[in-house]
Amino acid sequence: MSILILSEQDLRQAVTLDAESVSCIEEAIESLATKQVVMPPILSMEIPEFNGEVDVKTAYVPGLDSFAIKISPGFFDNPKLGLPSLNGLMVLFSAQTGIVEAVLLDNGYLTDLRTAAAGAVAAKALSRADSKVATIYGTGLQARLQLEALCLVRPITSARIWGRSPDKAKATASELSEKLGIDIKAFESEQEAAKGADILVTTTPSQSPILMADWLEPGQHVTAMGSDADYKNEIEPAIIGKANLYVADRLTQTRKLGELRSAIAAAVVTGETQFPELGTIVAGTRPGRETEADITVCDLTGMGVQDTAIATLARQRAMALKAGAEF
Amino acid sequence: MSILILSEQDLRQAVTLDAESVSCIEEAIESLATKQVVMPPILSMEIPEFNGEVDVKTAYVPGLDSFAIKISPGFFDNPKLGLPSLNGLMVLFSAQTGIVEAVLLDNGYLTDLRTAAAGAVAAKALSRADSKVATIYGTGLQARLQLEALCLVRPITSARIWGRSPDKAKATASELSEKLGIDIKAFESEQEAAKGADILVTTTPSQSPILMADWLEPGQHVTAMGSDADYKNEIEPAIIGKANLYVADRLTQTRKLGELRSAIAAAVVTGETQFPELGTIVAGTRPGRETEADITVCDLTGMGVQDTAIATLARQRAMALKAGAEF
Repeated sequence: MSILILSEQDLRQAVTLDAESVSCIEEAIESLATKQVVMPPILSMEIPEFNGEVDVKTAYVPGLDSFAIKISPGFFDNPKLGLPSLNGLMVLFSAQTGIVEAVLLDNGYLTDLRTAAAGAVAAKALSRADSKVATIYGTGLQARLQLEALCLVRPITSARIWGRSPDKAKATASELSEKLGIDIKAFESEQEAAKGADILVTTTPSQSPILMADWLEPGQHVTAMGSDADYKNEIEPAIIGKANLYVADRLTQTRKLGELRSAIAAAVVTGETQFPELGTIVAGTRPGRETEADITVCDLTGMGVQDTAIATLARQRAMALKAGAEF
Repeated sequence: MSILILSEQDLRQAVTLDAESVSCIEEAIESLATKQVVMPPILSMEIPEFNGEVDVKTAYVPGLDSFAIKISPGFFDNPKLGLPSLNGLMVLFSAQTGIVEAVLLDNGYLTDLRTAAAGAVAAKALSRADSKVATIYGTGLQARLQLEALCLVRPITSARIWGRSPDKAKATASELSEKLGIDIKAFESEQEAAKGADILVTTTPSQSPILMADWLEPGQHVTAMGSDADYKNEIEPAIIGKANLYVADRLTQTRKLGELRSAIAAAVVTGETQFPELGTIVAGTRPGRETEADITVCDLTGMGVQDTAIATLARQRAMALKAGAEF
C-alpha cells in the first residue's frame, strides 16, 4: 500500500484561507453538535530543558473517510538558533482500517489555516452581520490571518492593529492594508483600539489581560484565540461575567487552557458553570447573539476536529493537483 | 531541512530482536528511575463504528537527541478485509528544536520489537538466573517474540506453548522449536503448562484469567504482557496478592490498563497500594527477587519511553546502512 507524502509547499499550493476552507472548518465545528464525534483530550508533553512542548490532537468525525493525528511541537528558544518556534506535521489514517494514508509535512501551516478559519466561524456565528470595524490585538501570523478570515465572513471596511511594539504594529497595518485593500491603522493604546470596533480579536501569547471589561461596548464581539495553555490570559476575567454570551470551542478545553480558566480562577464563574459550545450555535441548536446590543465572546483553544477536517481537505486538493510523492 | 523516511523493510533490516535492542530497551526502562524522563499519559481514541482504536505514546529521555511519537491504530475488523489489525508509525523529533527528523513507517514492527525486549528486561530483572523452562500463553506474534526474547537473557532449554486452539499451539511449538533449536511442546491444559516452569509469560488479549494463583510454584516468575486496555485480564487477581513481588512497568498505567486494574477491582489491593516499577529494579535502587523461592510478577502495558528508545536506535542503524529516503 502506498502513502502520500505532502511537503509544506505542496500543501500551500493545495489549500489556502478562503471560503471553502472556512466552510470546511465550520462543518467540522458544527459536527461536534450534530454527530458522534470522538475527540479525546490533548496529549501534551513539556521538555523544560529546551523550553519546548509538544501537543498531539486528534478527532474522528463520522462521515469523514479519514482522521488526522496532528503533532505540534513548540520550541521557544528556536529563534535564537535561527529556526521557527512552531513546527509539526499531520498524519492521515483511514477511519475504517487505521491504515496510514498520508503524511502532511506542513510545519504548522495547516494549523495556522484551521485556527484562522475558526476565527471566521466564530465571527460568522456571533458578531453582528453588519460588522465593519475590526480590531486585532497582536502582530504575529495569526493577527494577519485572523483579519483576513474576518474579511471572508463580514463586510469589514477598516481595521486597527495593536501590538506591544508600535513599530511592528505599523508595519503589520501597512502590509495588511495593501494586501486586503482596506483602511488599516496601528494603535498604541489597547483601549483606543477597542473604541467603536465591531469585532475584536486577541491573538497574543499574553499572560496578563490586554483587553478590559470596562472598555467593551454594546454590540461588540470578542474572539480570544491566543490562550491555549494554562498560563496564558488575554482578556480580563470580568469580560466573561459582563458578556451576554460566552461561547467555548470546547468547554473541557477552555476551562483548562482558555480564557475561561482565568475567569474560573478569578471566581467570576465556577468550574461547573455551563456555557454553550460554538458547534451548537453553528448548528442552530442553541441561540447565538439575541440582540444588536449583546456583547458576545468566543474562546478558542483549537480542536482536533479542525485538524482532521483541514487535513482531509488538504489531501483531497493535493490529490486533485497530483501533488506530493507516493511512498 | 530534510526528513528521513524509513519503510518497514528498511527498519526490519536495520534492527532486530537481539542483545543490543534488549539493552537499548533496558536502558530506557532504567532511565525512568534515574533520569528526569517526561512521559505523559497515553492519548487514546476509540472508533466504535469500525471496531477501532488508536493510541499515541511518547516520552522524552534526557541524553537522547530525539524523542519519538508513536501512533498505534488497532482495527479489529481488518482481518475480515484481509488486512492486519495493527498498524502505525513513529515520528522522530529533535529533542532540542522539535523539528521532524524521521518518519518510521514501521506498521507496528518497532512496537513488536520493543514489547518483546521489555519481556526480556523483566525476566532478566526478576526471574531466577538459572531459569531453564519457559511457558508461553498465546500463539500470536508476541508469543513467538517473547520466547525468543527470553532465550537472549536466560539459559532456556525447553518451552511450552499453550493456546486456545490446540492446532495453533502445535504449529507454533513446532515452528519455534525449529527456529530456536530447543525442545518446545504444545500444551492443552493451562495448568499443566504452568507446572515446573521457571518463567511464565502471558501474551493473550484475554478478558478473563488463564493463569490461576493456586497453580503457581515457589521460584516462578510471571510476566503478563497481554493486558493494555481496561477490559483485558490474563492472570487471576489473587496472583498479585500471592506474589512476593509485583512490579509494574509504569504504575499509573498498570492501575488503569494492566493486571493491577483487575486486582484493584477484586479488592486484592487498593488503587493507592504502592509497588515498585521495573526501572527501579533495573537501576538497583529497589530490591528485586530476594530468594530462589520468591514468586515474582511483572505487569507490562508498554511505555512511550520504549518507543523513543527503539526509534532512536532504529534510525541510527538505518542511517549507518544508508537505508531510507530523504525527503
